Amino acid sequence: MLPGPRIFLVSDRTGITLEGLVRTLLSQFEGFAEEPLVRPFIDSAEKIDRVVEEIDRQAGAGGVAPIVFCSIADPVLRARLRGADARVFDIFDTFLPALGEALGLSSSSRVGQTHGMGRQGDYDRRVEALNFALSFDDGSRLKGLEQAQLILVGVSRSGKTPTCLYLAMQYRIFAANYPLTEDDFLQGSLPPALRPWRDRLFGLSIAPERLHRIREERRADSAYASLQHCRKEVSAAEALFQAEGIPFLDSTSLSIEELAVAILHRAGLHRPA
Amino acid sequence: MLPGPRIFLVSDRTGITLEGLVRTLLSQFEGFAEEPLVRPFIDSAEKIDRVVEEIDRQAGAGGVAPIVFCSIADPVLRARLRGADARVFDIFDTFLPALGEALGLSSSSRVGQTHGMGRQGDYDRRVEALNFALSFDDGSRLKGLEQAQLILVGVSRSGKTPTCLYLAMQYRIFAANYPLTEDDFLQGSLPPALRPWRDRLFGLSIAPERLHRIREERRADSAYASLQHCRKEVSAAEALFQAEGIPFLDSTSLSIEELAVAILHRAGLHRPA
Repeated sequence: MLPGPRIFLVSDRTGITLEGLVRTLLSQFEGFAEEPLVRPFIDSAEKIDRVVEEIDRQAGAGGVAPIVFCSIADPVLRARLRGADARVFDIFDTFLPALGEALGLSSSSRVGQTHGMGRQGDYDRRVEALNFALSFDDGSRLKGLEQAQLILVGVSRSGKTPTCLYLAMQYRIFAANYPLTEDDFLQGSLPPALRPWRDRLFGLSIAPERLHRIREERRADSAYASLQHCRKEVSAAEALFQAEGIPFLDSTSLSIEELAVAILHRAGLHRPA
Repeated sequence: MLPGPRIFLVSDRTGITLEGLVRTLLSQFEGFAEEPLVRPFIDSAEKIDRVVEEIDRQAGAGGVAPIVFCSIADPVLRARLRGADARVFDIFDTFLPALGEALGLSSSSRVGQTHGMGRQGDYDRRVEALNFALSFDDGSRLKGLEQAQLILVGVSRSGKTPTCLYLAMQYRIFAANYPLTEDDFLQGSLPPALRPWRDRLFGLSIAPERLHRIREERRADSAYASLQHCRKEVSAAEALFQAEGIPFLDSTSLSIEELAVAILHRAGLHRPA
């Protein structure tokens, strides 16, 4: 297959949003595997000009014309980028006029109002939520659980920790997690420390085969990792979820993002404003 | 001020990318503070119809017509959404035809090729990177540092942990971190355990006033949190970075995303393909 065009993502901020958008779009073109080139923090005429030079060099090298996606709030700067020898897709030019009309407002070209530290409180809250997830990881603390908005329960390696961290990072949710173990299954009921917070519990389950593979990576040939043991634990955990009326999801075929969003959705949680 | 229109974000996946895009766009309209309503996992005709009903109810309630942003790969489903009584902005319809032309390819309407678990290896790598960040957090392990792609150094509470976690989550980077303390400053040189990895070190600095406020939250009125002590530590850390030729950034006014991207950029690190 011929090499596709180079794709440049030019942003006056991190470029993370733009990258997400472009990956979503590119996923619709089977067989296109070129990695986009992210050019973040392009927020001055000098930086734009350097990127334009880079794009033009690429164009001059022959092959297919480069593609540029651009997320730059300053209209003067992004006009400069349109001078590049490439097909330019501009997020702001594409949506702002019609969106402004629909909102009944006119836009104000403010650079970096989204991720920036204009919202110091937002940064602090995320870091607090991360610290909370870290100190309430894996059942390591049970005192203070009343601060948790959500407590994930499930067997070891069912995806609790990454999901809690993502919920903290992306949604500023205070999420703890608690690993269900043999002891809990022998009791056949919730650990006493969790009972007062039953309405904040959410279960994670996982296919035993997948759990087996994950655990083998950590402790090969252990009883802990054996398929038989994984089957027993998963079925005991699901029985407990059902007996206690704890909503749960199967994490086997979900990404961390999907798990996080699905849990928020099912638990009716919303990020703090 | 009059209430603005309700904004619905309708996605066949998590809606995270769409939310990022819409927040970026909305940030350009000063004074617009309405929270968008995310409707994730809308991937069937029934679900679309329920969302359309919800939008139509909103439209019927009077006021300004609702605004809908839509990220749905299936063209039949998204055509159904256009029947809603709202101003609809469709990501795929907006970009796909021209992008396909620029790429010289035709699109294939594949739902959820981005975050999904089609890429199990990707999920595993992210979880591995997170586990790495967790076990090499705060200097807790020095054995095995050779696996680190990046080692963040800085005084306590300068932002190392959230940045390492973000780098793992978003970019699958193996990042460790090591807190610089009094002992290191007395030595006036890098701790011996870090010396072999000097080219992977990256420093974080922070304004003493901000550090003081952060530390006060954790240990009010302690020597550790005093402004004088924070000043001393920050200036000793920066002196060490300079003496050892360690690149560093001031984290004071940067978000976690900005820190992560700026570090990757400066350190020349790229996500694994």
